[in-house]
Amino acid sequence: MRQFILPSSYDGEGTLVLTGKESRYLSRVLRLKVGSQIAARDREGKSYSMTITAISREHCSLTPSKGETSLATLPAYSGPMCNLVLMQCLLKGHKEDTLVRQATEIGVSSIALVQSRHCVSDAKERSASRIERLNAKIREALQQSGSSISTHLERQIVPLLQLPAWWGGRGTALFFHQSTIALQQDLPSVVSTLSCDGPVGVLIGPEGGFSDEECAFLSHNGFIPVMLKTNILRSETAAIYALSALQVLMNNTIKPLHLS
Amino acid sequence: MRQFILPSSYDGEGTLVLTGKESRYLSRVLRLKVGSQIAARDREGKSYSMTITAISREHCSLTPSKGETSLATLPAYSGPMCNLVLMQCLLKGHKEDTLVRQATEIGVSSIALVQSRHCVSDAKERSASRIERLNAKIREALQQSGSSISTHLERQIVPLLQLPAWWGGRGTALFFHQSTIALQQDLPSVVSTLSCDGPVGVLIGPEGGFSDEECAFLSHNGFIPVMLKTNILRSETAAIYALSALQVLMNNTIKPLHLS
Repeated sequence: MRQFILPSSYDGEGTLVLTGKESRYLSRVLRLKVGSQIAARDREGKSYSMTITAISREHCSLTPSKGETSLATLPAYSGPMCNLVLMQCLLKGHKEDTLVRQATEIGVSSIALVQSRHCVSDAKERSASRIERLNAKIREALQQSGSSISTHLERQIVPLLQLPAWWGGRGTALFFHQSTIALQQDLPSVVSTLSCDGPVGVLIGPEGGFSDEECAFLSHNGFIPVMLKTNILRSETAAIYALSALQVLMNNTIKPLHLS
Repeated sequence: MRQFILPSSYDGEGTLVLTGKESRYLSRVLRLKVGSQIAARDREGKSYSMTITAISREHCSLTPSKGETSLATLPAYSGPMCNLVLMQCLLKGHKEDTLVRQATEIGVSSIALVQSRHCVSDAKERSASRIERLNAKIREALQQSGSSISTHLERQIVPLLQLPAWWGGRGTALFFHQSTIALQQDLPSVVSTLSCDGPVGVLIGPEGGFSDEECAFLSHNGFIPVMLKTNILRSETAAIYALSALQVLMNNTIKPLHLS
C-alpha cells in the first residue's frame, strides 16, 4: 500500500476510527503499530499524513500528523497529469475489473461504462453490484499506485445514444475504431491539435466494435474517430494502449493541466 | 479468429490435414464448410489464404487457395511496425498469461521472461509447462489479433545477470524503473535518440522493482534507465504502457522497420 484512501465520511480533522476489515488490514496485514505514519488521501485527492494512535482488537485509530512529514511511500512522479476520462463499452467481468484497476493506476480522472450495440453485456449482473465491485477495485488501485488523482466511477451505465449528453462537450472526445473510414486520424496528429482547456475523453468500443450507424452518430456529435497504427486489439488492450499513448504524448507536446 | 496460425510442420505447399482440437475448432466452433476460405499465417509470419477442401468427423483439410484472394478478416493496419522485444520479469500465473497475450496483440517480435531478485517467482511451476502454456496464449492472440508479427517466446527463463549476454547488443535496450536516479530519461527524449537499425528492448521490472545493484548492473551493461511520467504502475500495466507508448512514439518520430 502506497497510500490509504480515507472514507468519504472523514472530514480531515480529528481522529478517524476504523473498524472491521479496514482496521484488520492496517493492524494485522500491514502490521502497523501505534506511532506508525502512513500516507493517506481523501476521495477529493487531498493528501494527508496520518499517525496510528490506537490499536485494539476491533478498532484502529488514525490522527493527522502534526508538522512536516516525509513519507517514502509517495509516488516517484507527482504530476502534472493530463485529465483523461475513459468511456468504456461493457466488458466481461474480470476483464472489466482489470481494466478499471489499470486505468486507475494510470490516473484517469473518471470512468463511465457505456452500453453499445455490440457489447457482450452481462445482462444478468445487476448494475449496482457491478459498480460497487468496480469501486472496490478503484480504491485498491489508488492505495497501491499512490495515484494523486481520485478516479471517479459514473454510477450509471450510459447508453451510447446518451453519451454525447453525458459528456456535455466538456472537452475533446476521441473514439477508437479500427476501420477504413477516411475521416480517421492517427493519435499523434490528433494530440497536436488538442487544447488543454478541459478533459480529453477516450471512448473504447466493445469486442465487436462500433456499428456503422454508431460511428456516424458519434462523429455527428463531435466525437473524433482515431485509428491506432497497430494490430486489431482486444477492447481492454485498446483502452490501456490509448490511455498510455495519450498520456505520454500529452505530457510531451502540450502543457498538461494539473488536477488539484 | 482473424487468421489461422499454421503448424510449424507445414511447408506452405500441398494439403494440410488437421486432427483433434484444431480440426474441431474449424469445423465445429467456427462451423466452416468445404469451400470456405480463411486467412492463415505460418510461424515465420508469411501469410496464406487457405481453402477448406475436406471435413470429416476426425479431420479437416486445408489447401492454399489459387490466385488472388481478398479476405475481409485481414487487419486494418498492416504496418510498418517497429521491432519491439519485451524482457519481462516473472509475474504470477494469470497476470503473465494476460500480459503475454496483450504484448502479442500489440505486435512485439519476441518475449523473454527474466528472473530478477525481487521476482515473486512461482518456483513450484516448472519452466517447461509455463512456456508451453504461454505459447498457447501467443498462438491464440496471433489468431485473434491478425498480427503480422509472429511473436517468439524465449524457451528459457533468463536470469538478470545473463540478460546482457542474451540481448547481445542487438539494438537499444531500455529498462523502466520508477525512482529518483538522476540518469533517468523520459520516454519521448529517449525515442528521439533511437536508431532503427535494430530491435528496441523493453525490460520491465517485477512487482518489487529492481534493486540498486541490479540498476547499476543494467546501466553498466548499456541498458538505459527510463522513467515513465505517471503513477507507480503494477508490473503488467507498466509493460503495456511502455510498449504502447513506444509503438506510437516510434511510428511518429522515426521511420520504423518493416518486419518481413
